Amino acid sequence: MYLAKVYVILKPTVNDPQGLTIKGALHNLGFSEVSQVRAGKYIEIKIDGDGMDKTRERIGRMCHELLANPVIESYSFDLEKI
Amino acid sequence: MYLAKVYVILKPTVNDPQGLTIKGALHNLGFSEVSQVRAGKYIEIKIDGDGMDKTRERIGRMCHELLANPVIESYSFDLEKI
Repeated sequence: MYLAKVYVILKPTVNDPQGLTIKGALHNLGFSEVSQVRAGKYIEIKIDGDGMDKTRERIGRMCHELLANPVIESYSFDLEKI
Repeated sequence: MYLAKVYVILKPTVNDPQGLTIKGALHNLGFSEVSQVRAGKYIEIKIDGDGMDKTRERIGRMCHELLANPVIESYSFDLEKI
């Protein structure tokens, strides 16, 4: 059994209104030292994988086909045996 | 300048319909080896911090006050100098 931690975030050139909203809220709460916020998705996947390399390739396909929109988002993931 | 990578996820006992939906979609796409999916938030914050320890404490307060709902979500973060 493997645990994949997937991080999906908008590409740097894509406008991120959610991040801007969070930044504004942090400023209103007194955290004026915050200069940029980018908001994305964090997904934990437990998978009955067949070896580390094959599981890594399967997770990459999941990201590409469903979890991220490759046009506007980039993704990365960590994989560990549990 | 520091970069904080914040991970927010629902506590294990809290029902996660978004995760269940993603799991169902992955199964429909042929990824039948997926046994559990939990969906959360990933937030990158650039901050003009005043030392690593103080910045870590400020990020913790941001998580507690705004980024996570401590009743149903848990959070963690990595902090690095950039």
